Amino acid sequence: MKKVKVAVVGYGVIGQRLADGVILQEDMELVGVADIKPTLSVRALKERGMPHDLYLVPGADKSEFDALDIPVAGDFDDLLDKVDIVLDSTPAGVGAKNKEIYKSKGVKAVFQGGEDNTVADVFFHGYANYEKGLNKDYLKLTSCNTTGLIRAVDCLDRLYGIEKVAITIVRRVADPGDYHRGLTNALQMEKAPSHQAVDLMTIMPHVNATGILVHTPVTHGHIISVVATGKKKISKEMALDAFKQHDRIRVVRIDDGFLGNASFFRYARDLGNPRGDMYEIGIWEDSVVESGDDIMFAINIPQEAVTIPETIDAVRAAMNMQSDRLEAIAKTNGYLGLGKWK
Amino acid sequence: MKKVKVAVVGYGVIGQRLADGVILQEDMELVGVADIKPTLSVRALKERGMPHDLYLVPGADKSEFDALDIPVAGDFDDLLDKVDIVLDSTPAGVGAKNKEIYKSKGVKAVFQGGEDNTVADVFFHGYANYEKGLNKDYLKLTSCNTTGLIRAVDCLDRLYGIEKVAITIVRRVADPGDYHRGLTNALQMEKAPSHQAVDLMTIMPHVNATGILVHTPVTHGHIISVVATGKKKISKEMALDAFKQHDRIRVVRIDDGFLGNASFFRYARDLGNPRGDMYEIGIWEDSVVESGDDIMFAINIPQEAVTIPETIDAVRAAMNMQSDRLEAIAKTNGYLGLGKWK
Amino acid sequence: MKKVKVAVVGYGVIGQRLADGVILQEDMELVGVADIKPTLSVRALKERGMPHDLYLVPGADKSEFDALDIPVAGDFDDLLDKVDIVLDSTPAGVGAKNKEIYKSKGVKAVFQGGEDNTVADVFFHGYANYEKGLNKDYLKLTSCNTTGLIRAVDCLDRLYGIEKVAITIVRRVADPGDYHRGLTNALQMEKAPSHQAVDLMTIMPHVNATGILVHTPVTHGHIISVVATGKKKISKEMALDAFKQHDRIRVVRIDDGFLGNASFFRYARDLGNPRGDMYEIGIWEDSVVESGDDIMFAINIPQEAVTIPETIDAVRAAMNMQSDRLEAIAKTNGYLGLGKWK
Amino acid sequence: MKKVKVAVVGYGVIGQRLADGVILQEDMELVGVADIKPTLSVRALKERGMPHDLYLVPGADKSEFDALDIPVAGDFDDLLDKVDIVLDSTPAGVGAKNKEIYKSKGVKAVFQGGEDNTVADVFFHGYANYEKGLNKDYLKLTSCNTTGLIRAVDCLDRLYGIEKVAITIVRRVADPGDYHRGLTNALQMEKAPSHQAVDLMTIMPHVNATGILVHTPVTHGHIISVVATGKKKISKEMALDAFKQHDRIRVVRIDDGFLGNASFFRYARDLGNPRGDMYEIGIWEDSVVESGDDIMFAINIPQEAVTIPETIDAVRAAMNMQSDRLEAIAKTNGYLGLGKWK
Repeated sequence: MKKVKVAVVGYGVIGQRLADGVILQEDMELVGVADIKPTLSVRALKERGMPHDLYLVPGADKSEFDALDIPVAGDFDDLLDKVDIVLDSTPAGVGAKNKEIYKSKGVKAVFQGGEDNTVADVFFHGYANYEKGLNKDYLKLTSCNTTGLIRAVDCLDRLYGIEKVAITIVRRVADPGDYHRGLTNALQMEKAPSHQAVDLMTIMPHVNATGILVHTPVTHGHIISVVATGKKKISKEMALDAFKQHDRIRVVRIDDGFLGNASFFRYARDLGNPRGDMYEIGIWEDSVVESGDDIMFAINIPQEAVTIPETIDAVRAAMNMQSDRLEAIAKTNGYLGLGKWK
Repeated sequence: MKKVKVAVVGYGVIGQRLADGVILQEDMELVGVADIKPTLSVRALKERGMPHDLYLVPGADKSEFDALDIPVAGDFDDLLDKVDIVLDSTPAGVGAKNKEIYKSKGVKAVFQGGEDNTVADVFFHGYANYEKGLNKDYLKLTSCNTTGLIRAVDCLDRLYGIEKVAITIVRRVADPGDYHRGLTNALQMEKAPSHQAVDLMTIMPHVNATGILVHTPVTHGHIISVVATGKKKISKEMALDAFKQHDRIRVVRIDDGFLGNASFFRYARDLGNPRGDMYEIGIWEDSVVESGDDIMFAINIPQEAVTIPETIDAVRAAMNMQSDRLEAIAKTNGYLGLGKWK
Repeated sequence: MKKVKVAVVGYGVIGQRLADGVILQEDMELVGVADIKPTLSVRALKERGMPHDLYLVPGADKSEFDALDIPVAGDFDDLLDKVDIVLDSTPAGVGAKNKEIYKSKGVKAVFQGGEDNTVADVFFHGYANYEKGLNKDYLKLTSCNTTGLIRAVDCLDRLYGIEKVAITIVRRVADPGDYHRGLTNALQMEKAPSHQAVDLMTIMPHVNATGILVHTPVTHGHIISVVATGKKKISKEMALDAFKQHDRIRVVRIDDGFLGNASFFRYARDLGNPRGDMYEIGIWEDSVVESGDDIMFAINIPQEAVTIPETIDAVRAAMNMQSDRLEAIAKTNGYLGLGKWK
Repeated sequence: MKKVKVAVVGYGVIGQRLADGVILQEDMELVGVADIKPTLSVRALKERGMPHDLYLVPGADKSEFDALDIPVAGDFDDLLDKVDIVLDSTPAGVGAKNKEIYKSKGVKAVFQGGEDNTVADVFFHGYANYEKGLNKDYLKLTSCNTTGLIRAVDCLDRLYGIEKVAITIVRRVADPGDYHRGLTNALQMEKAPSHQAVDLMTIMPHVNATGILVHTPVTHGHIISVVATGKKKISKEMALDAFKQHDRIRVVRIDDGFLGNASFFRYARDLGNPRGDMYEIGIWEDSVVESGDDIMFAINIPQEAVTIPETIDAVRAAMNMQSDRLEAIAKTNGYLGLGKWK
């Protein structure tokens, strides 16, 4: 079988993880990654001995890389000539400019959540609307919060039917290592409804969604509190049964040591996961409560890695590697080792 | 008119604010405050020139106060002999022990939220169940979160009827100046349902309530996201109309500069409020959204001072200073200057 | 005696405190404050009933103030026509532009530390170089850290002689209520030497100074660790004796409850200080240690209010209200109540 | 060559990293690890497929492990019967109790910095006093801060001679995943001199040391500012030359992206280091400044992994695997890959 040839453009927090994830897919080949500056991540790539090739995007100054003895495999054209599809994880807004280049080179692309929806033919989530991505040229992933949220809501929806969700996002404001977007001793409000609720309705148009978002000064994962109204009453047991079957959801308990968002990070490091990453969202068994006929629960979203599986699903859809949703998801999960721990 | 004589026992974060609040009530007299150690707050009282008298609780060592030239007006018996009612703001658990002394001296008492409910004859909230406190000897206030939450829910309930609430509490974990109960770069979960939801049902038994609580590493106020189900649909306009009429609620907007919980603190300092305190809860106009037939909104709870007005209401009820709820509340609000800003 | 007429331009964190401080000076008159937008601080001024007049700076849109019923006493010219001297606490860079207006109106000005040194005739510190400010037209205050640092170093220098200091600044990164310049779970380095060390040498040219600065995610005061080399050995006792005599220094102890920077803020709130402010720097008795012939100690810098006394000293110098340094300082301290607590 | 058989007792933050480090030593064999509870780390070990055996310490309840299908290889006696030396990374105080068991079994042990010095025959640092550990039965490692600090001071001392150091420790207060020892929006002082300065003098008795420690609410590494007095003047170039030769020190620059303590953590994750760990301390080139004849610089201490190399050195000393200091260090560094990146 011919492997699908993939490039990752933008080798930052998300780009590095996309590269890691693609490498694990036995039916994909990571041709290379591209960036514009010799960032810490690029320096780390060099210190690791260049496990994969580095290309430069337009605007990069090759002499900056030469000065640091960082091997450069070629320019952007060189990279795009070799690949079927690009995973674009450049800063918000850059992807839209890159799209013109991808178009001119006849290369497909998957954009991350920071881009405007108009950049893509379809706003995509591997579990919720895989079929819509089939054979499309340009797909945009949901953002980290929305990706994790939809996993949980879609999980209940497919089993029991969901009519309405009201969410409260307790958002982590920065990633570990960020200095430019912190918050100190403050909870910051966003105007409601949060974009995550609006985005959920775009992906799952049969669900009424709204939500409130509060930024908090932490780095290890968002927590989303969800109040969901089912077509019929969903009991605590029903919800937990559904979540426990899902390969991208870990159901955990406070008494087992999962005291908060930082426990998932700690656990992923202890597992020896590369970069201490976790692909799965967590749902606290202790958080699931019935509110009359509604069901309420709390999700942990590991913001750095959560979108990787669904992005890989997007490659499968765009390249029509699998026409069946469940088959595609099973491939991604299998290569990423998801669900294995159960 | 004879003034009601009040003592404050436990001169910490809450106790100091209770003393401030009582002093403003023209129909009450602050006889004195009591504490066990020459804490920073007691030293500050001395540096301020002893605007009110200090008594010692059992277990205090007077020589520690003498060594610092802090005037002591008498012991616990001396204080209790002079007062009609005690506001007990000692650390959780101490109030229950003090109650035996209050009983033996024939003095009424109002306890704060940290005590067990069994300490009191009635679990009290000035707006929601004033009548239950009338002529009672021992009352316990709701905690800071519950006090603020009930203000908002009771406000809607009296106008439109509330059947159900599902709350998400984004809890501040410490007060400014605390070093003993911090949290660093973590969001910590509590087992659901949160006690605040359960307490709301105790005070408002006709409402079904549940909730999820997340601790966050900040000090300037909790934020509670509320999803409320009315007996009939409550629109955004209806909710805002109700909130704007309430003298202990400030409706604010992000565009006006109320970006988050720290803005209330900043604003209260700019107002010149003693200690930078705010008695009112805040509700963001920008947070109010309809979720189908439900109404959703976010409250800011200034944890240090929010319970002061309802505690003063409790004095009014216990001493039967006003038998009418609205009359009592109006007295408290008038003396505290609440609602004046509208 | 004719009072010196003062305006405060820029009614933010510093400007409000300058206004408060000027009001307390019985030989000065606060003619008014000026700002460009109806910020939270301006709204608070209105809610307080306009204890002093508000003027608009060039660029302000009066209709924005009218819409909120905020009384405006006049424009910038109106204000400058009435005053002898301006305390300019506008954002960094604005002061330099304003200076041209002050010049054209023949009004003196004192700028805050954010402005470039070139804006002023003299870089000023009330204790260290009062005489240099006499009769000058344009003075620039040292920044908050430098102001507090120089207080301590000048205090030792005048008594014992100081040759060299090496400082480590543990810098608070934001003020309470800031959302735009936070840091989350990170310590951020600045390139050495820190500007505070360089500034100290400008003010005290006979001292060799260098330093390292680390930003930390807190809001309640910087801590500076100082290693000072005296002309002769300065013992712990000598250092403490000196510090305890200083009216703008509080010597405190951990065992008394001053556990860290937040304790000063807590104590100032308990004291009932407006906005919970403290003018004095703190020095921990427990931090003073001898390092061979050097003396080492830690200072707490309450960043919001620490420069107010020295700024008022600057008015005294510029207007030649007192030609003697100690006489001027004593006036400022007396009106601000400094040293009274001893 | 017969491998030295090693056990790790206490499988927490440090214990896991000791196990990782021992596994990399080709002349050592990790026989197993021991713990008392099925913590998150033990659960992770199971999810990883038990790459090494788990034993139970006295007091453990095997049924708790059985309930989770966690394989247990034996009890404490079983483990101790198989090993030459134990790396004890139990909570402070437990090691002293365990020592009696080690003694009775004739097993050597290396304790971590939390234990009292009296637990050991020698207070040990691989670089500074390797020879003192030779053939000793019980060694205690310096704490994380002291270990990193001594690396830097010993590095200068061996080349140029050091007489005196005055340090300011900007201490991270918790590890990622901790909820029990946080600090929120506060800098907390410790009484001077800090124990790290005292400990440095125990290891390097010819150096006069003192210091001030400030706790800060972050999790990714301490920063220590050092003012060092050499026997002769040490210039910036001399200091940097020395540091750059050291295999456990990384000299970095702010302009390269090492903006603060979190950058090292970010970089280690990007390197793919297990758990995102870093063994090396960092020294910012931009922090090195001359203070008269003294030299001043800032160190980054990655608290979770920094003591691992020196602990492994301790095994080499205790077991007399290498009698020569440099030979021992070179072995440890080689197996850990230290210095390879240069």
